[in-house]
Amino acid sequence: MDDYLEDEWMEDVLAQNAAWNTVAPTGDETQDPGLACINLADLLEAPRQLPLDCLLGLGNKEECELYSSAPEPYVGKSVQTELYGRLPWLLGLLVFLSVSSAILEFFDVLLQKHLIIAFYLTALVGCGGNAGSQAASLVLQALATGELVPTFADFWRVLRKELLVALGIAATLSLGIFGRILLFGGSAVDALAIALAMAVTVSFSVLFGASAPLLLQRAGADPAKVSGPLLSTVIDIAGVLVACLSAQLLEAVGAWDTMEKL
Amino acid sequence: MDDYLEDEWMEDVLAQNAAWNTVAPTGDETQDPGLACINLADLLEAPRQLPLDCLLGLGNKEECELYSSAPEPYVGKSVQTELYGRLPWLLGLLVFLSVSSAILEFFDVLLQKHLIIAFYLTALVGCGGNAGSQAASLVLQALATGELVPTFADFWRVLRKELLVALGIAATLSLGIFGRILLFGGSAVDALAIALAMAVTVSFSVLFGASAPLLLQRAGADPAKVSGPLLSTVIDIAGVLVACLSAQLLEAVGAWDTMEKL
Repeated sequence: MDDYLEDEWMEDVLAQNAAWNTVAPTGDETQDPGLACINLADLLEAPRQLPLDCLLGLGNKEECELYSSAPEPYVGKSVQTELYGRLPWLLGLLVFLSVSSAILEFFDVLLQKHLIIAFYLTALVGCGGNAGSQAASLVLQALATGELVPTFADFWRVLRKELLVALGIAATLSLGIFGRILLFGGSAVDALAIALAMAVTVSFSVLFGASAPLLLQRAGADPAKVSGPLLSTVIDIAGVLVACLSAQLLEAVGAWDTMEKL
Repeated sequence: MDDYLEDEWMEDVLAQNAAWNTVAPTGDETQDPGLACINLADLLEAPRQLPLDCLLGLGNKEECELYSSAPEPYVGKSVQTELYGRLPWLLGLLVFLSVSSAILEFFDVLLQKHLIIAFYLTALVGCGGNAGSQAASLVLQALATGELVPTFADFWRVLRKELLVALGIAATLSLGIFGRILLFGGSAVDALAIALAMAVTVSFSVLFGASAPLLLQRAGADPAKVSGPLLSTVIDIAGVLVACLSAQLLEAVGAWDTMEKL
């Protein structure tokens, strides 16, 4: 907190204390700024994770209400209630996930010819998911501590930084999977197709993972709850599409044919 | 909090207040149990998410230290530092993820014959991941609020409940994917192979997702940080293996051949 804010905030605390008729500020305020007092009855009822300024009546009201609503209990809920709560999400996500199957069915002939592409889809999509959720959790954390705010200035700041991070991660993971495929007997063109797809998928995942929490918060959604399923679904579909297009591209320029002739 | 705990805790708060030489408890304690006071200097420096009892000097010391160590700042870190921090995880996970590719290469001939199995792997593994992380976040939340503790009693309690939830989710998602495959022109045996794999993968994922946070906490690891990558990696490998074994089983009993003869 900068000095101005700190002073203003302290004044609010002291005013609040005065309203409760307590003997709070001590004489030497530079050494000992005094005490903030909380009604014990409130304190006993407050959920443990409630921020202090909420309890002191100084926090943002909407935000404080979010903290006060304790999460639903787990142990008391029946199996039926759990199923009602969880199944709609899972079924909805299944519909989106099956889009990736539709894409693969569309590239049927290509994949039959180069089956190895299909063998690396899980690893490709998994790497994209890991890179994306890593970026998302760092941004979520910075949002939670107030280091980042969902303004356009911070959005571009994050994007500029993550673009460079994404390029570094994409280069490393592409090289890694390229080596892995060659090592286990794949051809150089197979390896190139997957490495190309890896570079694009991972770059996209990092940028999408970093920007999604900011955009969600800006739109008024809870980024901590929505980011996970949104990321995994979008990255799964993007990864599969990119892999097929990458193989299609190499097939179109005759990369596999050229290799066989050599 | 039950009455006994509440009384004891209030005594501690009052003793702490007395140590700070404040005039805290009021006369009528049944109506107004008094005030808890916090040094304003401490309050200004405390991270926003620090639980109240930590600031009052009453919380579990180890736990309070975890809260006090603020997360590393995001904006100030250079791209190079970010890459050093993030790449080792991603490369490690890539190694594990490529196990799924090795499994698929092992079942090469089978998959060449029944390519549709490969087309549904992403959806299968994605559904497993969603169901598993859903169960994990509910248990993580219950651990955070103290509703569940990592004892063997609570472990069995969670497992008994999640077994029934898992069966319900597995049945629904299997039926869903079975219908989806038939609808888009897949054969009944193709659909059966994927639905069987879906049932096993999803059941495993829910049970693993629900028990992992408890086991990790018991082992002294931070379940909130480790659960995500652990779940996604294990479920990816398990899902791919189960899908191949399911297809292998139907091939061994001659399901596809029988269907063609009909």
